[in-house]
Amino acid sequence: MGNGTSAVVDAAQRARVAAADLAPLARATKDAALHAIAAALENRTAELVSANADDVARAADAGTSPAIVDRLTLTAERIAAIAADVRHVAGLPDPVGEVLRGSTLPNGLDLRQVRVPLGVVGIIYEARPNVTVDAAALCLKSGNAVLLRGSSSAYSSNTALVAVLRDAIAAAGLPADAVQLVPGESRDSVTELMRARGLVDVLIPRGGASLIRTVVEGSTVPVIETGTGNCHVYVDAAADIDMAVDILVNSKAQRPSVCNAAETLLVHRDIAARFLPRALDALADAGVTVHGDPAVLAAAEASGTKAAVIAATDEDWATEYLSYDLAAAVVDSLDAAVAHIRRWSSGHTEAIVTSSQPAARRFTQLVDAAAVMVNASTRFTDGGQFGFGAEIGISTQKLHARGPMGLPELTSTKFVVTGDGHTR
Amino acid sequence: MGNGTSAVVDAAQRARVAAADLAPLARATKDAALHAIAAALENRTAELVSANADDVARAADAGTSPAIVDRLTLTAERIAAIAADVRHVAGLPDPVGEVLRGSTLPNGLDLRQVRVPLGVVGIIYEARPNVTVDAAALCLKSGNAVLLRGSSSAYSSNTALVAVLRDAIAAAGLPADAVQLVPGESRDSVTELMRARGLVDVLIPRGGASLIRTVVEGSTVPVIETGTGNCHVYVDAAADIDMAVDILVNSKAQRPSVCNAAETLLVHRDIAARFLPRALDALADAGVTVHGDPAVLAAAEASGTKAAVIAATDEDWATEYLSYDLAAAVVDSLDAAVAHIRRWSSGHTEAIVTSSQPAARRFTQLVDAAAVMVNASTRFTDGGQFGFGAEIGISTQKLHARGPMGLPELTSTKFVVTGDGHTR
Repeated sequence: MGNGTSAVVDAAQRARVAAADLAPLARATKDAALHAIAAALENRTAELVSANADDVARAADAGTSPAIVDRLTLTAERIAAIAADVRHVAGLPDPVGEVLRGSTLPNGLDLRQVRVPLGVVGIIYEARPNVTVDAAALCLKSGNAVLLRGSSSAYSSNTALVAVLRDAIAAAGLPADAVQLVPGESRDSVTELMRARGLVDVLIPRGGASLIRTVVEGSTVPVIETGTGNCHVYVDAAADIDMAVDILVNSKAQRPSVCNAAETLLVHRDIAARFLPRALDALADAGVTVHGDPAVLAAAEASGTKAAVIAATDEDWATEYLSYDLAAAVVDSLDAAVAHIRRWSSGHTEAIVTSSQPAARRFTQLVDAAAVMVNASTRFTDGGQFGFGAEIGISTQKLHARGPMGLPELTSTKFVVTGDGHTR
Repeated sequence: MGNGTSAVVDAAQRARVAAADLAPLARATKDAALHAIAAALENRTAELVSANADDVARAADAGTSPAIVDRLTLTAERIAAIAADVRHVAGLPDPVGEVLRGSTLPNGLDLRQVRVPLGVVGIIYEARPNVTVDAAALCLKSGNAVLLRGSSSAYSSNTALVAVLRDAIAAAGLPADAVQLVPGESRDSVTELMRARGLVDVLIPRGGASLIRTVVEGSTVPVIETGTGNCHVYVDAAADIDMAVDILVNSKAQRPSVCNAAETLLVHRDIAARFLPRALDALADAGVTVHGDPAVLAAAEASGTKAAVIAATDEDWATEYLSYDLAAAVVDSLDAAVAHIRRWSSGHTEAIVTSSQPAARRFTQLVDAAAVMVNASTRFTDGGQFGFGAEIGISTQKLHARGPMGLPELTSTKFVVTGDGHTR
């Protein structure tokens, strides 16, 4: 635990008190607060847009890329969409109170395992003001207090948003300290948050690989690692070629900037000569540059494809491009594909395209990842697609939660044991 | 990740390879290996007792307390009991492959969330050779490779035990490297294990508070915190006094050295004058020394109890005695009891004794602990008592597992998504 007088520790202590008040709240009370937030966001749109304009101007002055400035920008339409998302969260089932198991023990004790909030959740994220509201809504719905540590480049926006959130929940009778911006814009405040063990129950970093690595390695608070996706599409010897081309192009190019986009193609040797010419042309049409191993380079040359194909290095197998680039290799067998994946995968999503039931079964058994796709695009690994209704992130670790995390993943459990004077 | 050439990292890398082989194994194969272990422990008892004698002699020479030497000692009878425990684990259901949820999504994709092994589990523990076998059996059953880091004072025993385990599983066709003793007796090997992120999936420290604190604060590998129990018994105004005395004495004195023993008594002011004289006499009969607040001291004096009652300090409220000592305070209300617990509890087990349904409901809602007992002894928080069949430890953290951990808590999950060419 950090210095007891620091602003971050003070915020965490107030969050802890608020969390104790939130834990027993009925769903109706929490949902009313979420509807109050949605209305307040709409009512105070002008104030939010104005605060955001300061951040946008600063970012533009600093020469920030247009894509990042766009992600940072709030408009009336975007605020309305954020408010709609909050109302959607209000409509989701409350995970708190769900009985996960229950039985009467042989000695007559009644045992129930019940979902309870985690307590205080810390979110560390980049310059996306929508995450501020989104994360706060999901934490409140699941009965947790939240400490928000956004990018300093969105500080003005986040300050305005959190003021709106706090006013709204206070008016709804909830403790305002259930939602707080972590004080301070410097890196020190992140460090203090990472060291607030005993006050903060979990940290969820959302953002690039270096942010996540920093938090994972420096935190004494338990961390849920999210979002790094070095995803593979393996085209088996028994693949339907049309299907394989569709799945590959969709996995790579439908939205290359996200963690569930594919980064590497692995092709079984027995189908490479028929599959690769078709695949390379389709990738070229999608604007994808291929980083190929010698076999892929040879196939490209032999087929006279229009695709841009350059030689891959070991670094390519390790890279999450998040761009219109794809590493590609020919493998001798399904087991060789599995071995490649085991070596280089980040454990996010791996896909096989095959018409062989034994191949599908072996691949799903041997590949160790949050999600394994059989004859489907890697792009389906998503809380919305999976029907979870909401997503706080996609966990690529094995502890607590793996894959898309919805509201239940923001809870812990408690055993409640009831007797009538039982002793051992 | 540590130095690639170190013996610990090398062991972890071999464990990782073994874990990949274990993951898809059928239950029958794993159970056969467990039965082979049990038979080998019995067949090689003489060898194990002899190796253990070296540790026992060293411990005795070093002036180790008789209680700890006793825990360290292996006899033929104890080895037979350990073998029986391994056979019991073989008889438990296999958690791997259990489908936790499954549905067909609106687009026709089949979604299944399936239990899979965690991978490589590290166990750091004290001078209890039985834990070596017990932890290995639970990890194998759940498809995990295990790295065992026992106390250096049990090194000879553990080396012999792990040799027996490895021979037995290799003879049963499993990779021997699925069970390894962490090489090296120095503290450095613990540090390297804690830094083997990416190779080790979870560390479970089992032992005293300082060991657990060291691991929790120094580890980059995810940790499951276990075993610290500053447990409270709250006697409500509406308690049945006979029941409250029984539960209190059982919680404190049935086995004071374990984490689910009670350490603090809280008594509602309205029942204190009737309850405390009875309770103090019963505690005296059980050999318990009471560390009381002024109200308890006054009650003791007024009642003329034979109990040993001394003045409590703040340190008493924080202490896990693990001995025949009990802190005791009078509180003004149920909410004051909850506030005391919130401040001092380690979140293990908290009990209320009451005949009031609203009081029981409020206490179970407000108290944040792995287990909350209503009219039952704190001593029931235990994997065996809860019917889990086995226990690798009792988690006092909120992430991944909370309370007694059985075989399912040694698993993660994987989403398997099956389509017929689905793209977004």
